[in-house]
Amino acid sequence: MTSALFPGSFDPFHNGHLEVVERAQRLFDRVIIAVLRNSEKGDPLFSPEDREQMIRDSVDAFANVSVVSMSSLAVDVARDEGADVIIRGLRAVSDFELELQMSQMNHQLSGIETLFIPTGSTYSFISSRLIREVAGYGGDVTPFVPAAVQRAIEARR
Amino acid sequence: MTSALFPGSFDPFHNGHLEVVERAQRLFDRVIIAVLRNSEKGDPLFSPEDREQMIRDSVDAFANVSVVSMSSLAVDVARDEGADVIIRGLRAVSDFELELQMSQMNHQLSGIETLFIPTGSTYSFISSRLIREVAGYGGDVTPFVPAAVQRAIEARR
Amino acid sequence: MTSALFPGSFDPFHNGHLEVVERAQRLFDRVIIAVLRNSEKGDPLFSPEDREQMIRDSVDAFANVSVVSMSSLAVDVARDEGADVIIRGLRAVSDFELELQMSQMNHQLSGIETLFIPTGSTYSFISSRLIREVAGYGGDVTPFVPAAVQRAIEARR
Amino acid sequence: MTSALFPGSFDPFHNGHLEVVERAQRLFDRVIIAVLRNSEKGDPLFSPEDREQMIRDSVDAFANVSVVSMSSLAVDVARDEGADVIIRGLRAVSDFELELQMSQMNHQLSGIETLFIPTGSTYSFISSRLIREVAGYGGDVTPFVPAAVQRAIEARR
Amino acid sequence: MTSALFPGSFDPFHNGHLEVVERAQRLFDRVIIAVLRNSEKGDPLFSPEDREQMIRDSVDAFANVSVVSMSSLAVDVARDEGADVIIRGLRAVSDFELELQMSQMNHQLSGIETLFIPTGSTYSFISSRLIREVAGYGGDVTPFVPAAVQRAIEARR
Amino acid sequence: MTSALFPGSFDPFHNGHLEVVERAQRLFDRVIIAVLRNSEKGDPLFSPEDREQMIRDSVDAFANVSVVSMSSLAVDVARDEGADVIIRGLRAVSDFELELQMSQMNHQLSGIETLFIPTGSTYSFISSRLIREVAGYGGDVTPFVPAAVQRAIEARR
Repeated sequence: MTSALFPGSFDPFHNGHLEVVERAQRLFDRVIIAVLRNSEKGDPLFSPEDREQMIRDSVDAFANVSVVSMSSLAVDVARDEGADVIIRGLRAVSDFELELQMSQMNHQLSGIETLFIPTGSTYSFISSRLIREVAGYGGDVTPFVPAAVQRAIEARR
Repeated sequence: MTSALFPGSFDPFHNGHLEVVERAQRLFDRVIIAVLRNSEKGDPLFSPEDREQMIRDSVDAFANVSVVSMSSLAVDVARDEGADVIIRGLRAVSDFELELQMSQMNHQLSGIETLFIPTGSTYSFISSRLIREVAGYGGDVTPFVPAAVQRAIEARR
Repeated sequence: MTSALFPGSFDPFHNGHLEVVERAQRLFDRVIIAVLRNSEKGDPLFSPEDREQMIRDSVDAFANVSVVSMSSLAVDVARDEGADVIIRGLRAVSDFELELQMSQMNHQLSGIETLFIPTGSTYSFISSRLIREVAGYGGDVTPFVPAAVQRAIEARR
Repeated sequence: MTSALFPGSFDPFHNGHLEVVERAQRLFDRVIIAVLRNSEKGDPLFSPEDREQMIRDSVDAFANVSVVSMSSLAVDVARDEGADVIIRGLRAVSDFELELQMSQMNHQLSGIETLFIPTGSTYSFISSRLIREVAGYGGDVTPFVPAAVQRAIEARR
Repeated sequence: MTSALFPGSFDPFHNGHLEVVERAQRLFDRVIIAVLRNSEKGDPLFSPEDREQMIRDSVDAFANVSVVSMSSLAVDVARDEGADVIIRGLRAVSDFELELQMSQMNHQLSGIETLFIPTGSTYSFISSRLIREVAGYGGDVTPFVPAAVQRAIEARR
Repeated sequence: MTSALFPGSFDPFHNGHLEVVERAQRLFDRVIIAVLRNSEKGDPLFSPEDREQMIRDSVDAFANVSVVSMSSLAVDVARDEGADVIIRGLRAVSDFELELQMSQMNHQLSGIETLFIPTGSTYSFISSRLIREVAGYGGDVTPFVPAAVQRAIEARR
């Protein structure tokens, strides 16, 4: 196996995501992080471009990890990027069921497999939604996000 | 038992819904599909009128199935239509808890029972939300929806 | 629709089960309660015969409800008894997933449908397991079980 | 232990919330209900001021319960109000996982503990969302909310 | 509030349990750990007496924590020990539903409240069952249990 | 990545397991199926030797799949067999939480990663437990298991 696509909104990219990338880059020859441009989840905290840049800054220690923009279906990005599998982090039961449905839909659409990488317990309570909420009230998110994201949140104030 | 009300947003109606109708029309004398006009779930993909028409086209092989518009509580529609029970499909755990709360609320409001019909495993991963997402990116939803819905989605492009 | 099979261990039959029967007997022409003889769930509190008798005593106000013994697959009992559907109570998420799997297995085995009847919130916390535990420590189970079951538990002491 | 903070949107405050307050005021010296001003959950049914007043009217029989406005993180309100713990009601599995994540985030941010108080089964199916929906269609919410809330909903019509 | 009862099988007591005790003894005047004598969960790893002693050794730094044996219903032990509330750790969704049912049953039996204390994420994956399994195969459980339990497991080999 | 360990009880091996193997052997250079000898799940249907043989017969079309016996921790078998990751199928929410805990425990014990492979919806309702139950009552399990398992079940009658 060689290439894995890791798609998501990453608004913002946090230490739970970073842990998935760190684990994946040891297991796969290449990891492509695909940043969804048009999230339906309301107003984003950061623009897609800013999110991509923050992720690049956060993962640049990993030679086999790259970041791309995604404005089509994950299965199409996987094909265009030559990815063999889709990977997704799994943190909690509430993630699981929607993720399972998406993986079955993606398999039906293109035959591509999804592999789930469990997040370690240390970061299991972190979610982009909670980080947006804490950041929105001026709380300190330093323990939960990479330095590049922490700086971008600070710069907003 | 004679009449069952099957309420929902059906935006769009998909093969999982069709399977519930197909099973229900063999169990009940009459099945009334009630299409919610004012969904709170953000911008609809299709207007209520279009959804109703697509459903009619999809179920017209079943003599005892009809389609109505719904702009009040399901319990009121059930009473107006003379329905004896409300039916709902059950596909996944994430559906279950809200559905259980609604059934208890409806029973408290009017005494009406809700019966849950499990979706077969073949369509268990299909949801209107995923279909809107795949359709929005130009993906092929043919395997997941009735022909009338597939044509309507194609006509949008 | 006419006949519904309600299979279970019923060790013991409790007020949540009774509520399902009470609701079902208004919706179906006939309700057949099938008592599983060989449960795999460890030592039973009551013998199958005693369980059947307690259920008969508890439901004898309902003219269209009968009780049978069950020592084969639910789908076979349904066929033998002429039942059109299987019914099951649904109380909690933890019930749901196994019930869904069994309903899909039963449909695959014989084509029979399963309908789920939600338990009202008042009895949602009652389970046979908890009642066995409370009864085992001499606690008072009067609020949770029909009188016939309460008497049988008392007689054990 | 003395003071407990009970934060929430309370749009509207319902009998399940009231039950949590009633239980908590017997367990704690002081209970502070904190009403979130800026909910992200779309258009509120009532303004924060109206929600606060309805809650005051609903809990004024409890001498040790007060109501405050909340426009910062719950952990900051807890510190400012001198609360020793955060309390939250737990009704259903779907509540649980997000609540657990928030409690772990709050503990990480400030060291404060969260205690969960289970709602009794009688009100387990009530949610603010369902009440907004029923009220929006003109349904009768009298069984589900305190009198002050019921009057405010009536006055809207 | 003064006294809290923490009932359980504790076979064995692990760092997730210890964290609940550590948090609780700061919130309550007194914490009573009650060790269930007759678990239904199959063969225990340690006798009740051994479990009690290991817990005493593990919590002896906390002046307001005591350990008792429990051979009746938790609500009866709570009454006998003068406990005002029952406390339980909550680690995962799979714990939650049975715990909620037991808390509602206990409230119905005696009026006693249950408060749930969430386990921090660090220990969220630890369970007595997994520890028994790892220990049974000779794995190293040092990171997961207090020293007293670790020594007892070692001594078994 | 090269080698993946797929541990389990496989009592019996069914089409859902086979699907995981079929998907995995395309993604990994080598797949090692490890059959747990000492299950705690009560009386096994088949001996470990019989289970191993049935699996060999079921997967012999895959050149890069082998079957081994497992009488120690999965992490020890992984190390002994030179496996880089552990793989597990994920079918339903009820599987998920215990699997997540085990994966975090295994990572803590040895640093090994677990990857989850979702089962396709077609087999999502199949479980070894349900198959043992259906087989125990003489039901036809042909649609749910490989031919080698079906013959072994038939031979038992």
